[in-house]
This record gives sequence, C-alpha cells and structure tokens, in this order.
Amino acid sequence: MEAKHLIDLDQLSPGELDEIIRLAQKIHSNPSAYMDRCHGRIMATLFYEPSTRTQMSFQTAMLRLGGQIIGFDNPSNSSVSKGESLQDTVRIVSGYADILVIRNPLEGSAYAASLYSRCPVINAGDGGHLHPTQTLTDVVTLSMELGRLDHLTIGLCGDMKNGRTVHSLIKCLSKYPGNRFVMISTPELRIPEYIEDVLRESGCTYEFRDTLEEAIGELDVLYMTRIQGERFASRAEYERQKGVYILDTQRLKLAKPTLKILHPLPRVDEIEQEVDYDPRAKYFEQAEYGMYARMALILKMIGQKYPPAKKIENEQGGHCTNPRCVTQSEGYLPKLYCEHGDVKECRYCNAKI
Amino acid sequence: MEAKHLIDLDQLSPGELDEIIRLAQKIHSNPSAYMDRCHGRIMATLFYEPSTRTQMSFQTAMLRLGGQIIGFDNPSNSSVSKGESLQDTVRIVSGYADILVIRNPLEGSAYAASLYSRCPVINAGDGGHLHPTQTLTDVVTLSMELGRLDHLTIGLCGDMKNGRTVHSLIKCLSKYPGNRFVMISTPELRIPEYIEDVLRESGCTYEFRDTLEEAIGELDVLYMTRIQGERFASRAEYERQKGVYILDTQRLKLAKPTLKILHPLPRVDEIEQEVDYDPRAKYFEQAEYGMYARMALILKMIGQKYPPAKKIENEQGGHCTNPRCVTQSEGYLPKLYCEHGDVKECRYCNAKI
Amino acid sequence: MEAKHLIDLDQLSPGELDEIIRLAQKIHSNPSAYMDRCHGRIMATLFYEPSTRTQMSFQTAMLRLGGQIIGFDNPSNSSVSKGESLQDTVRIVSGYADILVIRNPLEGSAYAASLYSRCPVINAGDGGHLHPTQTLTDVVTLSMELGRLDHLTIGLCGDMKNGRTVHSLIKCLSKYPGNRFVMISTPELRIPEYIEDVLRESGCTYEFRDTLEEAIGELDVLYMTRIQGERFASRAEYERQKGVYILDTQRLKLAKPTLKILHPLPRVDEIEQEVDYDPRAKYFEQAEYGMYARMALILKMIGQKYPPAKKIENEQGGHCTNPRCVTQSEGYLPKLYCEHGDVKECRYCNAKI
Repeated sequence: MEAKHLIDLDQLSPGELDEIIRLAQKIHSNPSAYMDRCHGRIMATLFYEPSTRTQMSFQTAMLRLGGQIIGFDNPSNSSVSKGESLQDTVRIVSGYADILVIRNPLEGSAYAASLYSRCPVINAGDGGHLHPTQTLTDVVTLSMELGRLDHLTIGLCGDMKNGRTVHSLIKCLSKYPGNRFVMISTPELRIPEYIEDVLRESGCTYEFRDTLEEAIGELDVLYMTRIQGERFASRAEYERQKGVYILDTQRLKLAKPTLKILHPLPRVDEIEQEVDYDPRAKYFEQAEYGMYARMALILKMIGQKYPPAKKIENEQGGHCTNPRCVTQSEGYLPKLYCEHGDVKECRYCNAKI
Repeated sequence: MEAKHLIDLDQLSPGELDEIIRLAQKIHSNPSAYMDRCHGRIMATLFYEPSTRTQMSFQTAMLRLGGQIIGFDNPSNSSVSKGESLQDTVRIVSGYADILVIRNPLEGSAYAASLYSRCPVINAGDGGHLHPTQTLTDVVTLSMELGRLDHLTIGLCGDMKNGRTVHSLIKCLSKYPGNRFVMISTPELRIPEYIEDVLRESGCTYEFRDTLEEAIGELDVLYMTRIQGERFASRAEYERQKGVYILDTQRLKLAKPTLKILHPLPRVDEIEQEVDYDPRAKYFEQAEYGMYARMALILKMIGQKYPPAKKIENEQGGHCTNPRCVTQSEGYLPKLYCEHGDVKECRYCNAKI
Repeated sequence: MEAKHLIDLDQLSPGELDEIIRLAQKIHSNPSAYMDRCHGRIMATLFYEPSTRTQMSFQTAMLRLGGQIIGFDNPSNSSVSKGESLQDTVRIVSGYADILVIRNPLEGSAYAASLYSRCPVINAGDGGHLHPTQTLTDVVTLSMELGRLDHLTIGLCGDMKNGRTVHSLIKCLSKYPGNRFVMISTPELRIPEYIEDVLRESGCTYEFRDTLEEAIGELDVLYMTRIQGERFASRAEYERQKGVYILDTQRLKLAKPTLKILHPLPRVDEIEQEVDYDPRAKYFEQAEYGMYARMALILKMIGQKYPPAKKIENEQGGHCTNPRCVTQSEGYLPKLYCEHGDVKECRYCNAKI
C-alpha cells in the first residue's frame, strides 16, 4: 500500500482497495494462517470519545493477528485532562506502538495525528467527517455476500444528510461501473449537494424515493441507517421523522429473495427485530466481516516506522472557519489546504475556505 | 460438558461439577502445562456494572491459558448508551469472541444473552439472582483444602436472606451426603423459604443459631458474608445489625484447629484483620482458587461455535412481574417459563408467575 | 537485584542502578531478543488515580516482553468503592499476578502495598512522595544520550519546590562525581531544605539562578518541569509565575549545541512547540527510553513469589501526622519508622515524626 496512513478511503486506488478486500477474504477463509502475523506488535487505540463497537472491532482484529493492545477510551482518564496537546500524545504513543487507531470528535483530527506519528495512523472516525473503516467493512461485506461491487442497485435509507457512512459508501461505490443508487429519505434528510456532485461526475444513475415500499422491490442491497436524534433541530422533529423509514417484515415481503440488508450498527428501531431472522438480514455478519476488513488493513499497514516529524510551514491563504475543525483547538497545527476543482479546502476537515 | 452455556450451577450434574473441580486441581498443580491452551482465543467480558474483582479473576484465568481479552466495564462508555439492545450486543460480540462472560444487574440477563450468542456464555452475576462461578470457586476451595464436599458441618454467617452466594452454596452442597448446615444470623436475615425447601427436600440436617459463639466450635467450614448496607431498610437498621456477626480472634479461639474460614470478598469489617494471620483463614487462597476454577470452566466450555439464533416463540400463560427481570426492559425477549413442582417460574429470573 | 520491591530509587545501590541502565540499553539495541521473556507472566496495574502516560508506558513495557496485563485505572470502577482496604486488594491481586504496579495519591501507599504483596511491587507514584521509574527513565535517557551520569552541568527549571521528579533526580545524580546543579526558579519555588541538605552532604556544586537566560549557556542538560496549577495558593499567583520559565527558540539560541533538553511530560506550555524541531529536544525520546527502562526493571524484578504476609508489630514511638500519609486512611497498617541521622521518619511517607 502506498499510503503511510489511512485517513480517508479516497486515498486508496481501486487496485489497493481490491487488494485489501481480497486479503480480508483470505483471512476469513483461513484465519489460523494469520493468527501470529502480528506477534510482538502493539496497536494503540486512542479513543477521545467512547465507541465500544469500533474499538472492540479493532482490538479483536489485532488480537486475532497475535498482536497486543494499549490505549484509552475515555478522555477524562487521560493526560488530555492535564492539557496535553494531540501532537504530544501522538508523538509519545507512536513511540510505544506499531500502529495508532484514533477516534476523536474533532474533524481532521486523524489527519493532524498523522503529521506527528512515527507509525501508521488509522482514522476510526473524526467527528462527522470520515470513518473509512466502516466503508471498508461495507464493501468487504458486499464482496463476500454478492461477489462483486459493480452493476448493483443499491438502496440507501434513512438520514442521507448527516450520515457520513452513507456519503462515504456512495463515494466509494460510484467508482465501480454500472451501479445505480436509490436514495430513500424525506426531502429534509436528502444527501448534501457535494455528494450529488460526486454521483453526477461518476456517471452513475441515481434516484430519490420517498418511501421504502416504492424502492425495495428493485434493490440488490438495502443499506439502512440510524436516524440520530442528536442531528435534529428538535425532539418533536425527530419523533415525527424517525418512524417513516422502518424496515419490517411487511415491507420486506416486497423485496427480492437475493436482497442483502446492511446496517452500520448500532441500530435503534429502524429495523424491526423480526427481520433479524430473515436470511436476507446481513448486518450481524457485516459486523463480523468488519473484523476481517480491519485485520487485512492492519496487515497491509503495519511494519513501517517513520522519523520524527519535520516542521511544516503554514501555506498561504485563507483560514478554516469550521468550528468543529481540529485546527480551532490545536492552534499549533500548520495551516494546510488542498484544491478540489476551483474550490480551496481545509486539508484537515475539507471545509471550503 | 453437556451444557452450551453456564447460567446456573444447577445445570451441571454432580459428575460434571466433579470434572471441573478435578481439572481445576490439575491446573493448580501444574499451571505451565496449560499456559497456551487458549492461544488464539478471545474472551469478551461484558460488564454492565463494574465488578473489578470478578472481571480480573476471569481475565487472569483467560490470560493464564494463553488467551486474550476484549470487553467493557462501564455501560456509559458502551454502545448501550446509544440505546442498543442486549440482543444486538451479544450477537455482535459473540461474532468477535470465543467465549462471553456477562455481568448485568438485571435478573435473567445471562440467560437472555445465551439465547442469542454464537459462542458459550458464562454468567458472572445477574443482579441478585445467580453467580455460579462464585459457588464454583467455593467448592473448588473446599475440595482443595478439605479433600471432600460431603460429611461436613458448614456454618454460614451474616446476611442469609439476600446473599445469593450463600443460597447457591447451600443448593450445591445439599446434593452431597452427610452435610450439616448451621445458619448464623438474626431472624430478619434468615434464609428465604425456598432455600429451606431445598434443604428439607435434600434430607440434609440444618439448624439456626443466633450467635457465632454458639456455633463456631462445631464447624468444619465457616462461610462469612458481607452484610450489604444497601440491602437494609435504613442506615440505622444497618448500623444496628452489622456488628453482631463479626469474626475476631477472640471468637476464633472457640473453633476447631482444622476449621476453614471462607468469604466471597470484598469484606468490609465482618472479619477482623487480625484473623488474616491465622492459618485457618482461607479467604485469600479462595480468591486464588477462583482463578483456577475459572480456568477449568473456560477450558471445558470454549471451542464451540453455534449458528445464529433461530426465532423462539412465546410460551403460553402468565407474565413475569419481577421488576428486576431482564424481560421488563428488553421487550423483544420471548416469554418463556419453567415448572418447578407445581409452580410456574419465569425462565429468565425464576420468579414465580 | 537485592530489593524485593521498588518503592524508592534510593533502595538501589549505584551498581544495581547501573545494571538496570545497561540492561535497558541492551534491550533498546536488540528488542526482539526480549520479546518473549515474560511469556506467560501477568502484570497488574493498580491505578487508584488515572495516569494514562505512566500506565501506558508500563503496559507497553510488559507487552513488549511478551507478558500480559490486568488492572484498573479508575477507583470508582473498582472494589475500592465497596470499601475494600488496600491490604485486601493487594493480597488478592498479588495472587493473580506476577508483578504489581501501583499508583495511589496517598503517600507511602506503595510501601504499604509491598508489606502484603506476594509478588514484587513497583511504585508508579505515591502522591507527591516518590516516583522512582520517572527518575530511572531520566537516568537511562542521560546514559543513552550522553554516555555518562557524572561530570555534568545539570540545569533544573520550573517548580523546584513541589516537583518530586526534580527532587528524586537530584538525589540520584548527586551520588555521581563531578556533577554540578543549576536550579532555575523563583525564590518561592526553590528546592526544599532537605534536598539542599542532600546536595551539601554529597559534595556536589550547586547554584541558584533567577532566569533561564543566565543559566542556559553553561548546561549539558536542561531538565524542564511543568508548573502545576494545583500547587499554587491561587489562580492569580499561578498566572503570574507560569510564564517566567518558558523555553523558546530565542532562549535556546544561547545554549550549547550539545545540550540535551528533558521533560517528564506531559508539558503544558513551558516548552514552546517550535523547540520540538530542535535536535537538542530529547523529551519525546525520553518517553520512549522510559519504556526500555521499565522493561529492564520488570525483567530484573519478575519471577519471585513471596509467602503470605506475616504479622508486623507496631514500633514504639510517635505517630505520623502527615494528612496525606496512607496510614491515616488505612488504619490497620503497623506503625513503622526509620531513622535519618537524628531524625525519626514515618517509614511510609518519610514525614518527620
């Protein structure tokens, strides 16, 4: 793999992504061949916000490779509460460990960490920005269950506006030929414009539907998402919307027998528990595939050691004003940008300047 | 072992229990022969309420078998706080791990978990209901220290009413011939009726005493328990009772030289610290035997993988009204019952319907 | 190593300290030769107050030796919250583990633990009293970076009054010939008298300076420390003092090209982040050397098992009145003293009687 760190799944070429998927499949079919591959290696999981699911998946992946684990899951227990900068924590812990997995509510924090790390960094979620290993999990699941990532009709249901996993999955699958996306949500929760731009540029077909019933019959894949209460303007608004896109056995009767139902989990009530017993429900398998996906990723990345960070100078122009960007609270970070067509973006959080 | 999961020690036949005890003894006498038996295996400890002592004992047991550990010890850090059901957590984590150890304040929660788990489940305490590995620890300790589980005079002192470890130990030892039980407590803290029923049916001798002094001279075993402040109607009531059944060096003078003193720990002040230096004090050894007991149990149970749960239909009749039963908060659980003589019980929490 | 436990670095003879330093160097130069030395061994980290940095360093050290880890980092999650004494916790956990690492805000707590432990105890910080593995880290760093511990001019900057790491480093380095100490602080934060006594007795040269500028040009080593807000009488007092001894690139221009800058970390703002890119900054390397120092220490200590504690009688005379001494809250501890010249000290916290 060319990339030193995995911050955004977009960094990977389709060829590299394919390599990771195939390795995940190989591990899945013969896990004992890999059980000591990381003997003597250490992963540090730096979780600045708790996420048991993601942390456990990474930890299990590392342990199943024979590696070991250090880390924290609670910022109030860490040196962070003594005022330590992200930079210092990363410099020190990357001296202890062979690979860092970081989750932090600030957007761009994983990229920031990668600037100072002496070992590979994996982004395990930087706020609402990116969560590449979830998308990796999704595509490994599709590969395992369907044997391909192209020429699929993919339904995406729920909160299309705020769901970073949905955005990332669309970006990833739109690179494969013949895919058709069916977005199922209320107008208020429709995908943001920049994702529609991605779809338009990719040449993929895409459509919007108001209800599950209208769409479900055509789908090869149905990707359900949690409607997060905290994303809504008010409790009342949430209560009004949340019930609209629930998958139940009644609606499932309209679907193809070959449909695969995915969900990033945890779910609340957007999939009825009765659906779990339907063979088309693949979301628990998906969680398990996620472990194999992470094993493959770790194997591809581990083993490199980098020299201590060199000073990076500020780039000219602008100033990121995204209040959730890591540069707001970690003031020492160099100002860096990237261009996206005509648009200048913050290199950390991808907000437009 | 026939049982797929260990929810209640009663599931084990005396022969199976004996097998575990003998294995614990073998491990104790030659631990290095077992140090890699679980190489490549993972235990998940799902602790929905903190219990450092129990969690450490399980973790140490698994590590001393060469296995590894994932899990949580604090529900507020887990996906539970995002509203995830017990079912979903168990389905997912049992896809990562080879054995689940669950502790949860809701009665019947371990049984509920076992319905959805793809690997063996061990109950590490489900509220005031069951705590089978504590009793396993107790009988392994007695076997190691006395060489037998029968024809013993066993004193049990303290809170006989609320102490689940005491109830479970009585149930277990009443199956062995010739045992005699001496219950030492105030009338308010006497054993509940159903435990007296067990004793009566078993044909064992049993007696009640008001003070330690009266009883201690006859005993082969003295099982002390903590009088838990939280079990009392009021602080005043607690303060009045707690001092009554304290074991001190003065009272210990009345005991046989071969007495074995046990305590499930942690103790507060029901055993004076001076007693620790008496060779009859075995409670710290007991904690260590608990590790060997758990190693044996893990070895007996690990290695099985079960297919995803099939749908279980509700059974007819009744409705569990125990407010501490897991069925109250996990509404999707099928209604299940068992018969106990004429009495119908909730299959989860054993409350009468 | 003669000592059964490592409570105070002073316990080690210069020869023993030298042995540990040389072992740390050997491990550093060939870590893979040591990666399975602690296979099958368990370290328990009992952290009664959180300290992610120290805990991670110990955990990494043990894992890099092939050992395993149990423990806690949060007293509210532990049996301590059920009122368990330090003695009981230590007796039990030392039955599970092969080595105990304890951190506890009470002074003398590590010594207290060592009285009841069945395996070696390492003090990872007992309040403001001792923190021997930090000093071990510091001397390993100096050995690695300078090749010697004698004939050095050592500047110590910041809070000289409350900084236990500074006191301990002075005590340690004053045993080597030809060292000269330059203390840089305000009069209010000057070293306490007993440290000045140590210096006087050692025959070392020492001086006091008011500013970094005056001192920095002469130094071989500059040991910077955090000025801890919580040590000050008031917030205003803290704000007034904290800026005075900041190391920035401007002041660094006055230093020798061979200077080594150390800091126990975490830092807040006493070293400007620009300084990190200067090759003389060694504080991140120091954190990494700390891991090797702890690996060496663990290797030297592990492998012993001690019989259960025998009763220790109170010694005559006095009564420790230090409110932060472990004897205040753990009342069962025997009263023990040591003599220091004419002065009688509490054996736990070293307060004068």
